[in-house]
Amino acid sequence: MAETIRIIGIDPGLRRTGWGVVESLGNSLRFVASGTVRSDDKADLASRLCQLHDGLAEILHFHMPHEAAVEATFVNKDATATLKLGQARGIAMLVPARAGLRVAEYAPNAVKKSVIGVGHGDKKQIHMMVKVLLPKATFDTDDAADAIAIAICHAHHRQSPAWRLARESAA
Amino acid sequence: MAETIRIIGIDPGLRRTGWGVVESLGNSLRFVASGTVRSDDKADLASRLCQLHDGLAEILHFHMPHEAAVEATFVNKDATATLKLGQARGIAMLVPARAGLRVAEYAPNAVKKSVIGVGHGDKKQIHMMVKVLLPKATFDTDDAADAIAIAICHAHHRQSPAWRLARESAA
Repeated sequence: MAETIRIIGIDPGLRRTGWGVVESLGNSLRFVASGTVRSDDKADLASRLCQLHDGLAEILHFHMPHEAAVEATFVNKDATATLKLGQARGIAMLVPARAGLRVAEYAPNAVKKSVIGVGHGDKKQIHMMVKVLLPKATFDTDDAADAIAIAICHAHHRQSPAWRLARESAA
Repeated sequence: MAETIRIIGIDPGLRRTGWGVVESLGNSLRFVASGTVRSDDKADLASRLCQLHDGLAEILHFHMPHEAAVEATFVNKDATATLKLGQARGIAMLVPARAGLRVAEYAPNAVKKSVIGVGHGDKKQIHMMVKVLLPKATFDTDDAADAIAIAICHAHHRQSPAWRLARESAA
């Protein structure tokens, strides 16, 4: 008998971290909830990281997912932006790992391939396909929509050996 | 009457995070302890971030510092290296902030200026000056020595308005 697996997808960012929770049962997917954790950009960096930590910890506590998936994003803009993203991403991976969840990582093109069928496409296409795959899905920001897409990607890949490969290459 | 302030300096890195604890009383400095938190490079990234978190949390619990200082390092090698450093740095700032400590950030040239008198110099010069300023200091890695230098830098700057400026510009 198949078991229901609850998955949280996380799209990390220092200013806004999107999250989306879906349930996977066999081949069917169900939308649970999504949202955005914000940090106060007037606060110092350490306080902002605490805000992300506490926000994500609260969501995990409330929705009790079994597995987590985080996008392995690369920002090539500049070192400062990449360092900021890395700091937020560290928190986004730490919180579910400390709660005992396995944390998968997916490259952006793997996420796109899962929801729109090809490894490229813009934000609008991702949002449209999230609504096609999960008609009841709602999201307050682009980051929350992306987080749902990451959760969908994990639902598709979680039982494939590719997950292990993706985890190893991302580590 | 001056009060003794216990400071932890942290030099973050995914593989090795150095830490050093010093005590500052007026103009005098005393070495307390230093060491290196390692993560297992065969483990997945989320587990490694947990290892850094738990290692630093244990050290804070044991040494009970009042304030923390972290180096605002930039790696310009490549985006992957910068992202990794950012992830480790996120944990290095989160742990003391969650424990209620103020977390200062200093640019590498500010740290160098504090210990060797000028804003440039190599690792050997930093290590030598750490031993001159704190003859009892011991360190097991370069990262631990750098962490002690960061703690010394904070001892020199913690009461200057420059700290606020440094914090604001680094945020």
